[in-house]
Amino acid sequence: MQTEGKLVKIIEKELVSLKFDKKPESLYKPIRYSIDAGGKRLRPLLTMMSCELFGGKVDRAIKSAIAIEIFHNFTLLHDDIMDNSDIRRGKPTVHKHWNQNIAILSGDAMLIVAYKILSESSAELLPDLFEVFNKTSLEVCEGQQYDMEFEDRDAVTIAEYIDMIRLKTSVLLAGALKMGAICADASHDDQQLIYDFGENIGIAFQLRDDMLDTYGDPAIFGKKIGGDILCNKKTFLMVTAMEKAAKGSQLVDIMNDDTIAPINKIKSVTAIYDELGVRKATEKAIEKHYRKAMKSLDEISACEMAKSVLRGYVAKLMEREK
Amino acid sequence: MQTEGKLVKIIEKELVSLKFDKKPESLYKPIRYSIDAGGKRLRPLLTMMSCELFGGKVDRAIKSAIAIEIFHNFTLLHDDIMDNSDIRRGKPTVHKHWNQNIAILSGDAMLIVAYKILSESSAELLPDLFEVFNKTSLEVCEGQQYDMEFEDRDAVTIAEYIDMIRLKTSVLLAGALKMGAICADASHDDQQLIYDFGENIGIAFQLRDDMLDTYGDPAIFGKKIGGDILCNKKTFLMVTAMEKAAKGSQLVDIMNDDTIAPINKIKSVTAIYDELGVRKATEKAIEKHYRKAMKSLDEISACEMAKSVLRGYVAKLMEREK
Repeated sequence: MQTEGKLVKIIEKELVSLKFDKKPESLYKPIRYSIDAGGKRLRPLLTMMSCELFGGKVDRAIKSAIAIEIFHNFTLLHDDIMDNSDIRRGKPTVHKHWNQNIAILSGDAMLIVAYKILSESSAELLPDLFEVFNKTSLEVCEGQQYDMEFEDRDAVTIAEYIDMIRLKTSVLLAGALKMGAICADASHDDQQLIYDFGENIGIAFQLRDDMLDTYGDPAIFGKKIGGDILCNKKTFLMVTAMEKAAKGSQLVDIMNDDTIAPINKIKSVTAIYDELGVRKATEKAIEKHYRKAMKSLDEISACEMAKSVLRGYVAKLMEREK
Repeated sequence: MQTEGKLVKIIEKELVSLKFDKKPESLYKPIRYSIDAGGKRLRPLLTMMSCELFGGKVDRAIKSAIAIEIFHNFTLLHDDIMDNSDIRRGKPTVHKHWNQNIAILSGDAMLIVAYKILSESSAELLPDLFEVFNKTSLEVCEGQQYDMEFEDRDAVTIAEYIDMIRLKTSVLLAGALKMGAICADASHDDQQLIYDFGENIGIAFQLRDDMLDTYGDPAIFGKKIGGDILCNKKTFLMVTAMEKAAKGSQLVDIMNDDTIAPINKIKSVTAIYDELGVRKATEKAIEKHYRKAMKSLDEISACEMAKSVLRGYVAKLMEREK
């Protein structure tokens, strides 16, 4: 098993080697810009780690890993248009730096590039890899659509919310892991187990992000605490509070109150969360999905040392405060 | 060889059988809406005809044919956002009927669906089919980007214009034909010849569209004559006139004149075209590409009767006045 740092280096080297100095520049430059913006390279790392877990050589998984990373960056690019976001990873988003049409079109090209790279995998792997990649990609679109719809809805249940984040973020981690397993010729049972592991870990990660936005340590948390509250975002905390509170509760009043100062809004909503035991409920939900993930990992037929690399990496991510 | 009508029926049946009654509705309904809007099904027909030309069974090419048709409809959907078009085939465009975010996202999903269907081809065909499909798809994006850039530019050369329409429209016809040939296990030489045939036929089609917009018979032509002139569109006629006329000519003055009545603008520009011999030049260019296409078809090693089906279909399309 190679260390995380070594795997990231392989991924970065592969990403740098991709040629985007082609014409027309305004189609290809935004792709390079998006990829260079960085990030943890979480998804391709999971693909590579999963491949190694099942005894495969990482060379065999590199195309899948890169395809997934480019697909992920494509979703960010198009999501930023839809969400009208100005900044991504400290830099202007593509539709702000260039314009909207360029962002739509270079996003499309990026999705095609992701498929192009995946197509360069060993021919015998293509049917299985495409099956996972196609299904996952469509589900990510479904998740984004639900996310947008939820913003306009009054009530969202906890179950609906969990399913939305499962589609929007978890299945891509799960798919990344499953594709790594396919590249290592893992059994179908193991492919399913590593998928389940990824799905639950992904949900745990997202719930943790939701919690940190309200309960994170301001000194460590990267963004301002309470951002989600200020924009009435339907997070796990919010939908849990809505389910626990009676209809037409104080919460809805605060959400619709344009006169309340931001600092007071955060204080008031957090007080309601505290009163309703929302923090506890969120911690319990995180724990539940984390345990489920670990159970799947336990059941996988691979050597314990290899599993502990993945376990360690995931635990480290869970402990991050930002 | 099956008749064109029979092949269209197979294509329509396959398109109808695709399941898009899934959730979330606002992601999948626009896909069904786009596909049902119709069109000549030119591209999938070319794939099927090419497969038959080389002695293949159409069953083997149906996935490629449908993938290409869905890809084509995806490009229309996203192009309509970028061009801010309200109407497509007599119906409101997706971004008008729903909204822009839905149009971006369901377009993305459509592109994925195209790949999903292509992935369902026989496993041994996948590497070759993906190679053509990936290359072609990226080129279509390049063509759209050039098209948008040309709108903002003062001067576009004839060579640049031909290359833009080659990328934006011809390569997809060429790719559709080549994929049909791949499905029929045609030789590499024949694959290249049918590709060249499609590329030149595509250019001839587009130049003919350009010409009809100015010189079409108003009684037969579907849209109003002179639409391209009114919106200063850089068609083959326009770029030819610009190349033939001296810099700062009368043409540029008319284009920038906001006070001239539409009917007079069409008359004046058409008069300049006539004076500069633009119609003749366009007819010559159409003839050149049409001949080139026929030469490639002649060189293909397939039986003459099979070739004449394709020849007849293309000739019929060239004779259409709309």
